This record gives sequence, structure tokens and C-alpha cells, in this order.
Amino acid sequence: MTQLDLKSIEPIIEFALKEDIGNGDITTDSLIPQEARTTATMTAKADGIVAGLEVAEMVFRKLDSKTVWQTFVSDGQPVSKGDLIAKVEGSFRALLTGERTALNFLQRMSGIATATSVFVNSIKDLKTKILDTRKTVPCLRLLDKYAVAAGGGTNHRIGLFDMVMIKDNHIKVAGNITNAVNGIRPKISNAIKIEVETTTLEEVQEAIAAGADIIMLDNMDNVTMAKAVALIAGRAKVEASGNMTLERLRKVAETGVDFISIGALTHSVTAMDISMNIEI
Amino acid sequence: MTQLDLKSIEPIIEFALKEDIGNGDITTDSLIPQEARTTATMTAKADGIVAGLEVAEMVFRKLDSKTVWQTFVSDGQPVSKGDLIAKVEGSFRALLTGERTALNFLQRMSGIATATSVFVNSIKDLKTKILDTRKTVPCLRLLDKYAVAAGGGTNHRIGLFDMVMIKDNHIKVAGNITNAVNGIRPKISNAIKIEVETTTLEEVQEAIAAGADIIMLDNMDNVTMAKAVALIAGRAKVEASGNMTLERLRKVAETGVDFISIGALTHSVTAMDISMNIEI
Amino acid sequence: MTQLDLKSIEPIIEFALKEDIGNGDITTDSLIPQEARTTATMTAKADGIVAGLEVAEMVFRKLDSKTVWQTFVSDGQPVSKGDLIAKVEGSFRALLTGERTALNFLQRMSGIATATSVFVNSIKDLKTKILDTRKTVPCLRLLDKYAVAAGGGTNHRIGLFDMVMIKDNHIKVAGNITNAVNGIRPKISNAIKIEVETTTLEEVQEAIAAGADIIMLDNMDNVTMAKAVALIAGRAKVEASGNMTLERLRKVAETGVDFISIGALTHSVTAMDISMNIEI
Amino acid sequence: MTQLDLKSIEPIIEFALKEDIGNGDITTDSLIPQEARTTATMTAKADGIVAGLEVAEMVFRKLDSKTVWQTFVSDGQPVSKGDLIAKVEGSFRALLTGERTALNFLQRMSGIATATSVFVNSIKDLKTKILDTRKTVPCLRLLDKYAVAAGGGTNHRIGLFDMVMIKDNHIKVAGNITNAVNGIRPKISNAIKIEVETTTLEEVQEAIAAGADIIMLDNMDNVTMAKAVALIAGRAKVEASGNMTLERLRKVAETGVDFISIGALTHSVTAMDISMNIEI
Amino acid sequence: MTQLDLKSIEPIIEFALKEDIGNGDITTDSLIPQEARTTATMTAKADGIVAGLEVAEMVFRKLDSKTVWQTFVSDGQPVSKGDLIAKVEGSFRALLTGERTALNFLQRMSGIATATSVFVNSIKDLKTKILDTRKTVPCLRLLDKYAVAAGGGTNHRIGLFDMVMIKDNHIKVAGNITNAVNGIRPKISNAIKIEVETTTLEEVQEAIAAGADIIMLDNMDNVTMAKAVALIAGRAKVEASGNMTLERLRKVAETGVDFISIGALTHSVTAMDISMNIEI
Amino acid sequence: MTQLDLKSIEPIIEFALKEDIGNGDITTDSLIPQEARTTATMTAKADGIVAGLEVAEMVFRKLDSKTVWQTFVSDGQPVSKGDLIAKVEGSFRALLTGERTALNFLQRMSGIATATSVFVNSIKDLKTKILDTRKTVPCLRLLDKYAVAAGGGTNHRIGLFDMVMIKDNHIKVAGNITNAVNGIRPKISNAIKIEVETTTLEEVQEAIAAGADIIMLDNMDNVTMAKAVALIAGRAKVEASGNMTLERLRKVAETGVDFISIGALTHSVTAMDISMNIEI
Repeated sequence: MTQLDLKSIEPIIEFALKEDIGNGDITTDSLIPQEARTTATMTAKADGIVAGLEVAEMVFRKLDSKTVWQTFVSDGQPVSKGDLIAKVEGSFRALLTGERTALNFLQRMSGIATATSVFVNSIKDLKTKILDTRKTVPCLRLLDKYAVAAGGGTNHRIGLFDMVMIKDNHIKVAGNITNAVNGIRPKISNAIKIEVETTTLEEVQEAIAAGADIIMLDNMDNVTMAKAVALIAGRAKVEASGNMTLERLRKVAETGVDFISIGALTHSVTAMDISMNIEI
Repeated sequence: MTQLDLKSIEPIIEFALKEDIGNGDITTDSLIPQEARTTATMTAKADGIVAGLEVAEMVFRKLDSKTVWQTFVSDGQPVSKGDLIAKVEGSFRALLTGERTALNFLQRMSGIATATSVFVNSIKDLKTKILDTRKTVPCLRLLDKYAVAAGGGTNHRIGLFDMVMIKDNHIKVAGNITNAVNGIRPKISNAIKIEVETTTLEEVQEAIAAGADIIMLDNMDNVTMAKAVALIAGRAKVEASGNMTLERLRKVAETGVDFISIGALTHSVTAMDISMNIEI
Repeated sequence: MTQLDLKSIEPIIEFALKEDIGNGDITTDSLIPQEARTTATMTAKADGIVAGLEVAEMVFRKLDSKTVWQTFVSDGQPVSKGDLIAKVEGSFRALLTGERTALNFLQRMSGIATATSVFVNSIKDLKTKILDTRKTVPCLRLLDKYAVAAGGGTNHRIGLFDMVMIKDNHIKVAGNITNAVNGIRPKISNAIKIEVETTTLEEVQEAIAAGADIIMLDNMDNVTMAKAVALIAGRAKVEASGNMTLERLRKVAETGVDFISIGALTHSVTAMDISMNIEI
Repeated sequence: MTQLDLKSIEPIIEFALKEDIGNGDITTDSLIPQEARTTATMTAKADGIVAGLEVAEMVFRKLDSKTVWQTFVSDGQPVSKGDLIAKVEGSFRALLTGERTALNFLQRMSGIATATSVFVNSIKDLKTKILDTRKTVPCLRLLDKYAVAAGGGTNHRIGLFDMVMIKDNHIKVAGNITNAVNGIRPKISNAIKIEVETTTLEEVQEAIAAGADIIMLDNMDNVTMAKAVALIAGRAKVEASGNMTLERLRKVAETGVDFISIGALTHSVTAMDISMNIEI
Repeated sequence: MTQLDLKSIEPIIEFALKEDIGNGDITTDSLIPQEARTTATMTAKADGIVAGLEVAEMVFRKLDSKTVWQTFVSDGQPVSKGDLIAKVEGSFRALLTGERTALNFLQRMSGIATATSVFVNSIKDLKTKILDTRKTVPCLRLLDKYAVAAGGGTNHRIGLFDMVMIKDNHIKVAGNITNAVNGIRPKISNAIKIEVETTTLEEVQEAIAAGADIIMLDNMDNVTMAKAVALIAGRAKVEASGNMTLERLRKVAETGVDFISIGALTHSVTAMDISMNIEI
Repeated sequence: MTQLDLKSIEPIIEFALKEDIGNGDITTDSLIPQEARTTATMTAKADGIVAGLEVAEMVFRKLDSKTVWQTFVSDGQPVSKGDLIAKVEGSFRALLTGERTALNFLQRMSGIATATSVFVNSIKDLKTKILDTRKTVPCLRLLDKYAVAAGGGTNHRIGLFDMVMIKDNHIKVAGNITNAVNGIRPKISNAIKIEVETTTLEEVQEAIAAGADIIMLDNMDNVTMAKAVALIAGRAKVEASGNMTLERLRKVAETGVDFISIGALTHSVTAMDISMNIEI
């Protein structure tokens, strides 16, 4: 599973705390003694896959560097309703002030991991991998993608910068797939892969000839996809894309594609129910 | 309806663009001439309430300051599947590079507005207002709350800094509600309101006596809430909170509370389906 | 007394140190060994009320995280000429380099607290509170307001964002007070108070009817103010404003207003004389 | 007169606006139409020397880039009570929102310039120059020093970085003045001047021999200062420092020192009374 | 040729100007009227390949947004001693203040392009490409790599983030190449290429089997490299690395490797002599 | 020797690490356990003068705050090929990830120090000092200048802000040297030195009369320089500038100038060969 790059998400956590706390949690700072410490537990209120434990931890650590954080499950593991997820001991103020932000992260990320795992498990006997997309919540790209990986999914490119993805509009401007691929190669470093979006078998053929590293089959029916996979014959990786519901998933995977990408994993998330209880 | 504070959301948009674009949209920058310009349209693919048009506009304007942005509907207005929402003319590169980020914002915000409007409309003949909560997606607090307002909801406090909210844990530490309110008053400016969370009529009585500006009725049954409203008798505003489903909403509103707060408006959002088509 | 939000003032202290130190205290860094440590004392050279001890401490701690800071008086307490205020043990370089910045903060803040306490004490047998204003030194708003609170004053709104203040120009544009209040209410969250500025009893009457939370009596004579207080009869808080000299203060307070605001507390400050002596 | 470095003060102005406006001027933004424009005038309510006009202008320009700013006097020029200082035409919102911040800057800076000019004028027939010190308000060093220059004063070093100033504590650690000067010279670039603080004629003699560029006479009586000036005989510049009141100033200047430095110019400032009136 | 990402280099240019200008070019700002404008020319004082024209332009534009910049050659093109490279018309102050920074960029970048072109030209009849390395000057990675591309070279990965490079130490920890490749694959997105460093033909064989995208031949003699190329037989790209002098280059290229990487292109640069003359 | 201002170079090191690491060293983070620690040695592969040890240390410390750094030589000291320079014990990941950045700094800085020492040593029996210039690599000004000092050179002004340097273009605009010096003096603080560039003995005479602190002899022949030194007679410091090769250096120094400035020290640097070996 992808590792979480804590350095990169630090500004996200700081921003989230800032938007909630602003110039101070006026209630807590006025009523709770600065030196008071206490303990709180986080408990699953529904079945699911946990993701974001380190993020929740960092929320509290940002507020109190002496926080003691103990987990009873790891990111990517299943929990049942009622299971203890984590225990946090620290500044009473920090626990009260950070509670909502920590839960906002943890519940969303666990929601994504839970949904992803349903898709992954439905085809786990096949070689096809579930991919995420760039349809993530703005500012949370890295966290959304990490949560997908925690749910057993595979990450697609992070953004527009780490892989070439030649789509229909690019092809139209370039004239054809061959022109597009040849036009781009001398302008990129030798580290960059090229993926080409195709909608017909003719385009698939042209993408193979142009030397694409990955070929996307966009909104094709299952039969055409199977033909495309046969045509490509291992010369490039194959991604299926477009309206991939849970119902249709298995049939698509059985065409032999390497990847199926699903936007709903991150664009429409149901938060997993998790509660935090503070001991007094 | 609340106005969108464009200055405050500018860093959010910049961050969102940065996470997607990084050091550059290598595909588009390699294939589309820098000076090329074109036009695109945004169209509703489902019925709903639009929100976030200025955010989408700013995404494109950040990439091309000469973008021409034209809207056919305003934030907070309903659209039907197939309706034209906006037209954008600008740098071809900017349109391709900004498309996903603009849609990620617009689809989430419209999703929130759409869901909120369902709750609001179900009790629109009553005086009770629908409130949002702090259960927003981290970093998008201001946008989530704006979208709730666009859907007809009323904004609760922005965060921990702009209103005192005395909750159960605060009360336990202070000893009782009276101590909590009296302990906090000399420590805050004269601009700050005080809300007190209550779970019984005795606590409601104590909150009234302590001079709370707003009293929250937390997880009370409808009969108790009606008694609380009668007891308060206009001496404070009243907020109902806890498991407020659409089914139960009307009965709660009929108890006479001023506000009903609903976390799901922002913590579990279904993106509204909106597409962008580029003319070539 | 308001607590000092150390997180918020950290950038102020860093900026102040940066403007003084730039790329380095070339004298001290060249002559004092890096590892040398020493002790210094801060002593009152005049009678007054101390404020800003934590700020001075943070100045030294920013330069040497191992600074040992010991205080002999708390913010808000009176000192007499010659009294020892604080003792600081730390890096010799840090003490020399930070001395002027620490004193610049401490002397200004103690000057504000001292002046405020004179006003507060002159009416301490009455219920009226002394309020500060937004006439603070740019960038030091939070520190100036904290110093007022240390001197026994009450803080007014922090800025333009945390309370509605409807002034003459706003009223003129809106047409009248009623229009102004009604125009603003649907646009703000339920956390925000509304204050209305009035200059006549008619306006006071209108402000009451519109449901203002606070009514400002601007530049009224004492008799009119007394009438206004009677008219309002507890339905809103009352603030007196305009040319409030020490001489006039008591008479104004005796009209029964809740607050008297005084700009000179922060716009024309005489630094309190405090010296720092380093042991060698 | 020193020029104002607008680039350097830009972050100061932005910080000042941010602390006052936060997430928005909720009153003005709710009541004044975004596109409304109007005119305001700034008028002296007392005699004095104006300073800070470009700062006030930048305040409004930050809020509305299309502001038209017209001045009737320049920084450093005298005005009489009732004189028109400036006229500003721009966004109605920007004028209301920026008014207090613009005045806070302008009134403080004009207050400094006014006080400085009194000192400068009292010895204007002599060659001695009035110097400022590092006793400025934290974060406003550049503005305070600019205001001193506007009042006819001469700027001393900006901070700890742009000149060597060897003070008593440095000398004690180094052993004597000679050691201190020799110890520092190989560690600094050839651009840096060296000033040495002295309290006796013996120290003055040693500072001359060590090759100091400037010699400070600290808290000496007038007779000793005259002897020091004679002893130095042009081999270094001479600065008198310590308790320099207006009464004593002329006598000190007549000893022949090049500079007299005065902390009170900036540490205890009385704001000049200036008002802003908006046309409606 | 790679395009220069102006957005990414903007902070570099701002930092460079800041370190040179600090709080202001005190000489120029004191002597040259703010509104004065003039023209300057940049001329080659030696033969070479120009690179960095847009960087030099941005230096001046940062100082004066109305700069008119005219070039007589493009990045990557050869110039002879005496050739006019560019003409810049703008604020007199901006030209004087920006001159050194603009030349510092332009001379270094042109120096890199010039040296690269010598290597590239010596094997231009062969298919082998010249690669740069990560041995660039800290903070100028993007500019150094752009200059290599301007000289006809091909860019290797930008840094540690955009390609997997499994080196000897990684292999030792993993046990062998197979373990290393298999250990890394599930942890990365599908956008990332894998390069493996090898020193023997056995390692080459293992890297092929593990499915490496690129195989580096590190410090092999020419005969072994030729055998490695034959062994790989197109199943991966091949990079030769280690002590690649101009003398040896052709023989290495003739082994059939796809890439030869050369650290000296960027770690030991001789600035190209370019002068700037201002018309007065 | 100048001390290295670690605070000022911290952002440079952070930027350098960021440009290399981006969102993570994907190879090392995937293959090396987070808790693994190891040791590495840095060894000279050529004779030279070391500079930049604290910079290299900070690179590793930024990646692992628990790094143990041990040096066997100090900045400014000579090493021979094969000498052990430093030993670093720390996180295995940190050593692998930081290796290239640490070496990029250390090799460049040692290269500068080595070249400088050759110039310095060739005239070490004379009083003349070797000066650096502003021809440094953008963003590395402070490091380049520190490395010159480590090689025995003397630092000239840091940038355009810390000394007045009146050059030919300034003189032309002002009319003559006298006008230029007199025009600038009232606009600067009393901390700033004035240097004047001259090309003839007449100009030297005028610069003396105007009271310049330093006089630059630009591109004069050796005989004229000797005459200029005699003419100045100690009334100002003297700097020789323009095409100062190692061959010509001694003759120039023998004219009696105080300083000779050499741009090539920093604009054309050959990295010193230093290697890092990690123990496994």
C-alpha cells in the first residue's frame, strides 16, 4: 500500500486546523485549564475499512506535541461496529479543539477506503486492478488517493504533471494519435510514461504503433474491450474507463484489462461513522 | 444569501490547482499552442441547485487572466438536466488544464446546495431554519458553508473562534452551566455570543438563567423539545441537533425551534453531475 | 482577563525580530561566543501596570529555545519604580540581540495597560466597562487589545469581521436603520451580533425596534445619553463613544451606559520606562 | 529625505488590513453594493507635519486597484488645522473598509514627523543632526524611521545588521575597546561601519586609536562632550545619546557633536488628529 | 526542446532579486529619477549557445512590468562573439538594478548550453542521447536542466520523486534486484517508471527479468556495455553512466546505449561571457 | 572568517531539498525501513580547501533531526585526496535521500574555497586583500560569499542594499562624481559607506574631494593604479577591479591597493571532487 507522505499533508492539516480554530477555540481556552490532560477513545459506529489514522494523530500532535497516540487497527484493516480504533492521551484542550478536525479527516478517508474495498473485493480473484481518478475533493488529492490505496485500490497519476495523458481534445488538435505522441516525446524527460485515450479499435491500433505505455479504453462496450485487449497483446497496459458501476465491474474485468478507473470512489463519499469520547 | 469571500478562498483554489498541476500539465503544454483560444460550455447532467460558479470562474482566471466567463444561472438557482450553466472562453491550455479542478469544486458545491434545498423546502412554510455544522471537508469549510447557504440553509458559526459553544465536556469540567457561562464572560470581547448545549429541561432552565444567547437541544425527543421551547419563551434562540433525518424534520420544526442543524449536508456529499465540453 | 493567543502573535514577533536582526546581529555574533550564557533582569523605572511578559519571553525563546524565564509579577499587576519584573537566563547572544525588541513590546504594552487602568479605576465602583477601539497600531491589534484587558478594560470587536457595526454611512446608504438591520440579517451566520450607531433618541428608538444587540450613543451629551439608557431599558447593551476624557468619564458612566469606548488608550501611547541589565 | 521603500512595507500593510478585515467587513459587504463608488477627503484637525501619504494610498489601493488618490501636500510638509490633505475616489466599500487602517498609519506617522520637526527646528542653525533609534514600534521600524526623516531627522542604522555598534556589554566581554574592534574587523565585509559606545574620555581616546567610524558619547555631561569632540578632531563622527530632552538639546548641539539620538521620537508617539469624511 | 515552466521559476527569480536588492538598491534609487526610462543591449563576448532569455526577461519584468524585451536569437541557438542577443527598454532603475541578476542567470545557463552542445554534437550522427544528472546547483535544478535541453541534451528524471532509481545501496538492503523491483511495484502509482543500476551482466540479466523500464550500466568498460546492450535487446532502455569524458564519448555511444549521462554538464560550469550596455 | 548565518540559509536548504525530493524519494521510501539507521563517510577525492560542512550537516538534519554529524576538518582547512572529511550517522533513508543535495552544496562551496585560496596565497605576503563580487549563482549569494571567506578572501558588499556603489552610469546621470555623492548623502542613513568607481586620475581626485569611503580603480593599468594609490594617500580605501587573472595579480597588489576583486571566484566554479560512502 502507498505510504502516506506526512510532510506533504502537513500544510493541509495546518490549513484545516486554522480554518476551524482561527484565533482560538474561545470556549475551550476559557474553560479548560491549560495544563489539564485527559484521554479519549475513537470507536467505529459502523463496519468499514479504516484510513487516516496518522492524519488524525497529526491533528492532535499539532495542537499538543506531547500527545500519546495508540492504535488498535492499522490503515487498510477492517473494523466492526463497536470496535475500538484508537486511544489518544494528551492536553485536554487539544483533544476538545482537535476532535472535529480529526474526525472530519478520519471519517472521510475511512469512507473512501470502505467504498473502494467493496469494488476491489468483488474482483479480487482476477488480475485487474481498481484505479482512482483526479475526481478528488480539491486540496485533499493526496489523502483521497491514499485512502483508495488503503482500501486496496491502485493509484493512477497524481495529477497533470506525472504522466502524459493524451485525451480526445489533444488528439483533435494534433491531428491524430501518432502526431500527438511524436510531438510530445522530445519535450519530456525520459522518466515520463505516455497514456493515450481511445474510443475505437482503429485508435487502439494507432496508439500501439505510436508506442504508448498505457492505452485507455474510454466508454467502450465489453465486447470491444475484449477485442482491444487481444489486439494490444501485452505491448501496453490497458485501462478501462467510463461509468463503471459495481454491477458491471466483473464483466469488464473479465475482458482482461489491467485497470478499471472509478471516479465515484472519491467524488461522492459517504463518511464512515466514527465517534470520539473524552474521559472526564 | 451569504456572499462568497473571494479573497479567503483564493489560497484554496491556488492549492487545488497546485496539487493537480504541479510543475505543469505536461500533456497540454506540449501539444496545445500557448496562444490558442477556444470556448467551452458547462451543462447540467442532472436536476439540482447550482453553487460555486465564481469558484469555477476563478479556477480558469487563475490560469488565464483574460478568461471570459458567462453564466446562464446564478448560485442558488435550480437547473434541469440538459440546462446550460456557463460558457467560458479563454486560453485553450487553461480550459484543458483547469477543467477537472473547476468541475471538482462546482460538482461538490452544487451537490451540497441540492441536498440542502431538499431539507429547506420540506419545512419552508415554517419559521425554522436549517443550519449547517462544522462537519465539513477539511480546507473547504468556507465553500461548504457557502454552498449550504446557496441551497437555502443558514450558516452556523464558522469555527471554534466566532461563537462560544459550551458542550457537555466543558460543563462537566466547569461543574455546571452557570459556572461555565460565568467563567467565560469576562474572558471574551463584547462581540461574542454564547450557546449552551443541553440534554434535559433542567439544563435548559439553567442555561436561560445564565443568560445564554442560544440554547441547543441535543438529541431530545420531540415532546421534550416542545416543552423546552415553551420554557425558553423567546429569551434565547433554540437549536435542535442530533440525527435529523428528512423524515423526522417536519415534526422537529413543528416544536417551534428556531434552528435545526444537520451534519450530513456536508459530511456525506453526492457530487452533482455536470459536464464540460470544449469546442474544437 | 482575555488570554493572549500566542500562536497568533508568533508571526508578529518573528517579523519584529526579522526587521531588527535582518541577516544577523553582526556586532554580537562577532564578539560573543556562541555557547556563552548569562542572566539579565528587567526592572521597572516607573510605577505602572505590567503587560506583555509572555511576549518578551517569546522574543528570547525565539532566539534561544533553552531560555529560562522567571517573572516576579503577572500581566495586569501594578509595579513600583525599582521593582524587579523578570529575570531571564539564556544565551548571551540571545539576550543582547533580543533586548531592544523585547523592551519595545513590553514598554508599549505596559504603557497601554497603565493608561487603561487609570480610566478603569476612576469608575470602578460603577457597572460601566471601559472599551477599546480599532484605533490600534497597525499589526499590533491583538497585543494592543490584550494590553487594554490587562489594564482592566474590556475588548470591543477585534476587527471588521467579528461583529456587525452599522455606522452613519451605512445607514445613509440603506435609507434608515430598519433597512440596514433587515438587509444584513439574512447574510450573516447566527453567531454574529449587530451594533447600531445612533446620534439621536429617534435613532435609538429605531435601533431598539430593529432588534440591535448593542446600541452606540455617538457624541451625545450626558443628558441625552441618560434618556437613551432609559429608553432602551435593557433591551440592548449601550455603548457611549466620542471624546471621552478622564475628566468627563464619571459623568458619562453615571448615565448608566454599559460601555464607554476610548481611542486614545491605543492611538497615543506613552511607553512605560523599563530597563534590562545584563550580568557580566 | 529618505525614500519610502514601498515593496518592503507592502507586507506590513497587508498584515494590517488582514488583522482588521479578517474574513471580511461583514457590515459593509452586506450593505454597500459592490460596484458603488464615492469620494472621501482627509483633513487635518490639528497643526503638524504630514507623513505616510503613500502608505494611506496603498491601503486603499490594496482594497481597490482603481482608487484615484490626490494629495494637496507632500510628506514632510506642514499643515494647519482644517487643511485638506488628500482626496480619494474609489470603491465605496474600499473607502469604508480601509478608513481606519489608513488613518491608523497616517495619524501615527504624522505624529512622529510632527514631534521630530520640533526637535530639528530648535537647532536648525547648527550643523548637528537629529537621529532616531531602534526604539520603534515592533513591525513598523521602516515606517517609523521614514516618518522621522519626513520630520527632518536623520536615520541611524536600521537594525542590528547594517552597522556594527559596540556597546558596554560587548566591550566587557572583549576586554577593552581595542580588542573588540580588532576582533570584529576580519569577520565583516568591507561595507560595514563600526560605531563604539563610550562613557569616558579615556574610552573616546581608545576608540579613536582603534579606528572607529563613529563614536557615541553615552550619557556624558555637556562639558565632557565638548572635550570629546575636541579630542576626536574630525577623525570620527560623533553621536550624543541619553536623556535628550528638548530643553537640553541646544546646549548639547553646541558642543559640536554631529548627531543627537532621541528614543522618544518613536517610542512614545501622540497621533496627529486627522479625519476622513465620505461623501454620500 | 523542453519548455521552461515560468511559474515554477518565478520564486527562484524573486529569491535571487531579493538576495541582491534586499531593502533597495540604495545607489540607483537615490540617483536615478523614478520615471526615467532607457534602453540596454545584451551582447555575446564569446561564441556559444544562448539559454535563459526568458529568465533574464522575467528579472527585468519583475522590476518593471512595462519592460519591452526584444530578442535577436532564441534559446538553443548559437551566437558568435559580438552578436547582439537582446535589447531591453524599460525603467532606468530597473535596468541598473536587475543587470547583475539577469546576467548571472543568463551567463550560467548559456555556459551550460554551450558545454552540452559540444557533447551532443560529437555524437549527433548516432542515436544515443546525452542525459543530465541531479548534480545541479542547489535551487537551480529546473534552470540547469532547461539549459541542458537548450544545448541539445535530454533531461533525466527531475528528482527523487518522478522515477524509481534502484541503486546499489537499495539492492543491498533488498537482497537482490528482483526483491527490490517486486517490493516497490505495489507501493507506486501506475505512472512511475523503474530504472535499475547494474554493474555486471548478471545484474543486467536480473533487471531484465524483473521488468525494469530502464537499465543503467554503471562504470562498465565499453566491451561489457556492448554485451549488455545485446543482452537487453530492446526489452528496456539503456543508460551508460560514470566518468564520461568527451574523449571517450563516441566509443560509448557506439556500443548502442540509448543514453549517456554526464554530471559535469551542470556541476562545473564556466559562465559564458555576455555583457550589458546601457544607453545614456 | 565570516560566520555562516544558518537562519538565512535555512530556506535555501529547504528549497534545494524540495526541488530534489518533491513529494518523496519514492525509491528509498519504498525499499528502506523507516527506522533503519546507518553510517556514511565523506572523503576528499582531490586536494582542496573544504567549505560548507555546516550546510551539508543541515541537509541531513532537516531530513532526520537525530543525525549525528562528526567532522575531521573545519571549513577553510586544506585536505588531501583520500582524507576523511566527515562522518554522518542517521536515518538510512535520510542519508540516501540527502546524499546528492549535501554533495551538491559541499562540492561547489569547496570548489570556490579552493580557487580563492590559490589567489589569496599568491599574495599572502602583501597587505592587499582578495574581494569577491556580486557575480554569484542566483539564490546562493550568501553561500558563495561564505565559501570565498573560507578560502581566505574578504567579502565585498552583500548586495545593492548594504553599500552605495556609484558606477559610471550613475555618474553620467548625475553629471559628475561630486553631484552624485552630494545627491545621495541626505537620502541614506548614517550607517552606509559610499564607494565610487573611477577610470582616470581626474575622477580619483574628484572622488577624494567628494569624501568617498572607498574608491574603485576600474580597468586601469598598473602604473595608473600606483599613481592613484599615491594620490589617495590613505584618505579612502582603494579597490582594483577588472580582468584580474592569477598571472597579473601580484603586480596589481604591489601597486598598494587595499583590495582586488575577482568575479571568476564565483561565476565559473569547478566542483571539488568529494564522495559519500554508505555502510551497509
